[in-house]
Parts: sequence; structure tokens; C-alpha cells
Amino acid sequence: MALGEFELIDRYFRDCGAPRADVVLGVGDDGALLRPPPGTDLVAVSDTLVEGVHFPVGSPAASVGHRALAVNLSDIAAMGGTPRWALLSLTLPQVEEPWLEGFAQGFGALARAHGVALVGGDTTRGALTIGVQVLGTVPAGEGLRRSGGRPGDALFVTGTPGDAAAGLAIIMGAPGTLAAGQGAADLRRDVPDVARPDARPDARPDALEALRQRFLFPTPRLAEGEALRARASACIDISDGLVGDLGKLAAASGCSAVLDLEALPCSAALAAAFTPEAALRCMLEGGDDYELLLAVPPPQVAAVAAMPGLTRIGELREATARHAAGPSSMGARVMLRRRGADGTSRETPAAGAGFDHFAG
Amino acid sequence: MALGEFELIDRYFRDCGAPRADVVLGVGDDGALLRPPPGTDLVAVSDTLVEGVHFPVGSPAASVGHRALAVNLSDIAAMGGTPRWALLSLTLPQVEEPWLEGFAQGFGALARAHGVALVGGDTTRGALTIGVQVLGTVPAGEGLRRSGGRPGDALFVTGTPGDAAAGLAIIMGAPGTLAAGQGAADLRRDVPDVARPDARPDARPDALEALRQRFLFPTPRLAEGEALRARASACIDISDGLVGDLGKLAAASGCSAVLDLEALPCSAALAAAFTPEAALRCMLEGGDDYELLLAVPPPQVAAVAAMPGLTRIGELREATARHAAGPSSMGARVMLRRRGADGTSRETPAAGAGFDHFAG
Repeated sequence: MALGEFELIDRYFRDCGAPRADVVLGVGDDGALLRPPPGTDLVAVSDTLVEGVHFPVGSPAASVGHRALAVNLSDIAAMGGTPRWALLSLTLPQVEEPWLEGFAQGFGALARAHGVALVGGDTTRGALTIGVQVLGTVPAGEGLRRSGGRPGDALFVTGTPGDAAAGLAIIMGAPGTLAAGQGAADLRRDVPDVARPDARPDARPDALEALRQRFLFPTPRLAEGEALRARASACIDISDGLVGDLGKLAAASGCSAVLDLEALPCSAALAAAFTPEAALRCMLEGGDDYELLLAVPPPQVAAVAAMPGLTRIGELREATARHAAGPSSMGARVMLRRRGADGTSRETPAAGAGFDHFAG
Repeated sequence: MALGEFELIDRYFRDCGAPRADVVLGVGDDGALLRPPPGTDLVAVSDTLVEGVHFPVGSPAASVGHRALAVNLSDIAAMGGTPRWALLSLTLPQVEEPWLEGFAQGFGALARAHGVALVGGDTTRGALTIGVQVLGTVPAGEGLRRSGGRPGDALFVTGTPGDAAAGLAIIMGAPGTLAAGQGAADLRRDVPDVARPDARPDARPDALEALRQRFLFPTPRLAEGEALRARASACIDISDGLVGDLGKLAAASGCSAVLDLEALPCSAALAAAFTPEAALRCMLEGGDDYELLLAVPPPQVAAVAAMPGLTRIGELREATARHAAGPSSMGARVMLRRRGADGTSRETPAAGAGFDHFAG
């Protein structure tokens, strides 16, 4: 990029994050110099967002900036870490000042809210791609992993998973909510995921807007991750959907798992805007809200259940011989349990079952 | 990406780097857990390579892997750091096993040569873009910066700058050296830099090949950076060309600078394959070989001059009043000095002078 473009970037990003005393040298040299406190392990995470893959073309710049940092902070939260420093690699097709200003506002507000300093990175010309790396710390040896769960551990989830997937479905079904002049066909092609449920035609605008906001501005669960570091046996952030990520946690822990469908926390907005079947599908398959899924050993269950913002949704079990054979087909490790009208419970494998099974 | 693609990535990258005892938890969780030694500052660097911008379309995969890591190791070297851990964000248009194998071979060989562990990252579908972050360490408070230079400090450079720029010019002028079926017009468009000098028509093939290799597989100067950490007052890696990066070092140090053109180290291959004018231009403008440029205070000059692989090429001076006014137009801080036939020396500003001035 030409010098003028570097200067623009410099203008928007030099003071974008939080000031921190442990930044020895920040933006502007070949690298940053950072001073971790003694007795800590570093937590290093990296995630890249590509326009049209991870967010629809025409997304608000502030949302793109927020999400690029939020997905990384969520990974830090899943390790029980405290975030400190971020690097930003910004690949842009061209330099547009209003876009950069919005991006920096969204990125910076979230960074400052969590005390994260932006200490470096680089800018490049190309297809819109945002790479972010965050460095955090945990007390040495205390990082949360996916692999610590044991049979009998209870499963908890933060927040109300599924809202962001519903919000994305609303955005994809009504592209005018993002940017004028963008056709629905374009948007549907740009985020080439699964088929998405439609909102109820009579859904109230405030419910739709609440769900959209949950996609555009997800909340990384940093306080929950830190508070649960000493109580949980395993943790993962739900980026690929509750069933898929539970399968990964269970596989890493050498377990299988069961989810109680009636226990899944459904937000008022999701319940109001979608049919029960579509809402359930968002809760089980949606990952864009980046909630945390945790395994909690029995002695800690009462304390965790008393914490606000957490819901008990199932448990880990012994893996069957088939599970022990290999890690593939994560969903096969997860059973879905529902109570029938007669009070008995019925279980269905999550993998390959399709979601028609859960209706009625 | 589908699971099968994640598995492919996992196959090529899980054991790609060096094993390290300070990796508490590597690839495969939400983040990596790393244990820096007590009494150190972290050095954090990040650089992204985009196909068609930073390397020609059709570049060998092993070269792309090597360069993606090398440009980051060069930044670590410029801070006087020791590299430890790397993260890799790979955005690929499609998964091609031979390409991934070559990329991992190039990346992994350089990582293992410098004891760097690959501890995480992510994969995404999109235009070929490689983001790498490297974390290293320096003894606390001892990181080298651009800003420590003082008037009277001698300037040294590692290696023979300009070789890689010459190699790229050869590749761009003879695209068949990269990949069959790629037209010259395409390649010239894909790396939209400055006009490039042509090699002499009678240049020997071994000289051309040596220069090509310097572009495809540059050497990060880690040993030099570590050895000079205690002796140099300032350092920068030459990624944008000697004159431009000297301008940045001088500006950060509040100085101006002079380069002795006759002192610039020209490799035998560069001298053999290009005219003196073209070779000089490669040395002054080319940055792709990622040599280090260092300022050295007078008491350290004799010791540094005795180290192998370093050449004294000029000195820092007081900044003029015009320089003190602002950091723009970096090249204006740099004077080029050459000795005339009568033994007197003559100086020309580097910025805007054009390179015809240096001929004859």
C-alpha cells in the first residue's frame, strides 16, 4: 500500500485499544514488546474472518470489527484466560475512510471494554479478510481444555445459544437490513452455509432486531470463563454449533454426551420469532453467538448452578466401544433426550438424525 | 470447511514445526498454552502474504511456506529476539494435497531449523492468503528498536541486499521459471510493483538461479539479530528497500543518514547478471531478501566490523530543521554519497532523485 494508506491505518488503529502498562513497545516497530506477569502461561489464539464466508457482504463495519475481535476473545474465554494484547492483520480491497472508522470503532470499543491493547499487525491489499490474534494469560498450569471432562460431569452452557444463527437467518432472508442495493440472491450466495429457517411471518420487529444484534455484536463470555476456570473440568466455545462442539469436547475427553432438549435455554426473542422446530434447530446447530459449553464435576455442580447466566443442559457419559475407536463423526457421540407425554424419556442420536425428529 | 478438509490440514500441520518443552498445549484446542521463561519480554510480530501481491501466482508451494514464516522471523530478528512459537492462518481457495504438502514442507523446514513450534491457527476458504504470527522472547528491557540510533552511529547491513529483488525481476521477466502455462502478462500484472530491471542477456544461468533462490527462500538473520542485540543502538529489517527502511530508522531515531554507494555489498551473482545501474537499484530499492539494517555506536563499531556477514555502509547524522518538522517523505532523510574520479565525494538526496543519477 502507498504511504498515504499506511498513514490512514495508523490514524485509526494506533490508539484503538486499551492502554496497558505491560505494553513495553506497541504499534510502529518491527514487532511489539510485551511483559507477561510472572507465574503465568500465555494463551494464544488466532481467528480469521473472510467477507462472504464468515459475515455477509455489506455487513456494518462496526459489526465486522466487533466480531473479528469477539471470536478471538471467545477462544480466550474458553481457555479460562484473561486477554491482554491483540494483533490485527487487515487485508482490504481499497481504503475507505468511513469503513475504517466504523471498523476501528467496533473493534476498539470491545477491546477497551475488556482492557485489550492493540499492539501491532499489518495491512495488505486484497479481498476483505480480517485476521486477529489475541494473547492472554492464565495462572501457570490452570488453562481450561476440551479434554478434562469425565463421565458424570454435568454440562452447562452460557447465555441463550441459537440467537445469532436466527439473527443471521433473518439477515439473509431480508438483505435490506444490512445495506441498500444488495440483492437477496447475492447475500444468500455469499454465506454458503446450510439452509436456514425463516422467521415467522408475524414476528415482532423488536424480536427480529434483538436476534440480528446477537449476530452482529456477539458477547464473548470472558467473565464466565475466568470464574469457571477453577470449577469446570473442560470447556469449548460454541463456534460450530452446540451439537458439533459438544461432540468435540466429548471426543477430547474420551466420553459421550446427552443433551436434554427441554432444558436448552431459549431466549424470549427466539421463541417469539421462530417456530419451536426452527428455534430448536438454531439452538442445536447455530454457533455464531459464541457461547461457552462447560463440563462440571459433581462436587462443583451446585456452585455453578447458582451462578447467573448458566444453564444445565445435560451430562457426559462413558464412551461406547464404537466411540473409543476413533474421533470421526463427532455428532455420533451426542444423544438428544426428550421427555414424552407419558413422562418417560426417549433418546435419539444427534448425528444424521435430522431435526424433524425433534418436532411435536 | 468440511471436516475432511480440517483433517487434511491437521495431517500436514500438527507436527510441522519443532517440538518444544515450553508448549504446554499445542494445536487442537480453542487456543495454545505457552510458558515463557521468567525475566523475558515477549516479541510479537504478524505478517500476511497475499498471492499476486507478495508473491507471484504460481510460486512453488514450498517457497510460499518458507517466505510466510521467514518474513515474520525477520521481524523477530530485527527486535533482537529468539523465536519460539508460531500461529498460522491459512486461507485457501481449495484444498490441494500436493500444494499443502509443499507448503508444510517449506514452512516446517524453516521452523525446525530455528526451533519454532507451530502451536495453532485456523483455516478458511477464500483467496490464497497466508497470515503468520510469531512469538519470541528477549531478556526483559533489551528488545532492539528502530528509535535508538544517534548521530555518529555507523550503519551496517547484513548479507548482500538486492539479490531477492533481482531474483523477482528475473522471475517476472521469465515466467516459465515458476510454472508451466502461466503467461508473462499475467505474472507482471499479479505483482503490481515498480518497473523492474532486466537481467543482462548474456547472464549465466547459475547467477540467475542463485538470485531466484534468494527471492524464493530468503534467510532470516536471527543469529545476527541476537548477536547484535547488546551492541546495536537501532535495527530494522529491510522489507521495503534499503533507502525506504533507512529513512524509517532515521526518522524514528530523530536523525538523518548518509549511504556510501561504493560500500554497498553487491553479491557476485547480482554483479554478474545485471548492469551496475540495475544492480545498484536492486540494492537500494529491493527489500525481499529481508536483510537487517543496524545503527552501531562508535565504541561498538570495531567489534561489529569484525563480525562475519556485516558490511559498514554509512552513518547517522543530526536531522536538519526540515526533518525535525515531520516524519513524511522518509527518503528525504537519506543522502547518497559517492566518490568522484578526482577523489572528492558528492552527495545527492535519495528521495525523488531517481536512479539515473547514480550511473557513471
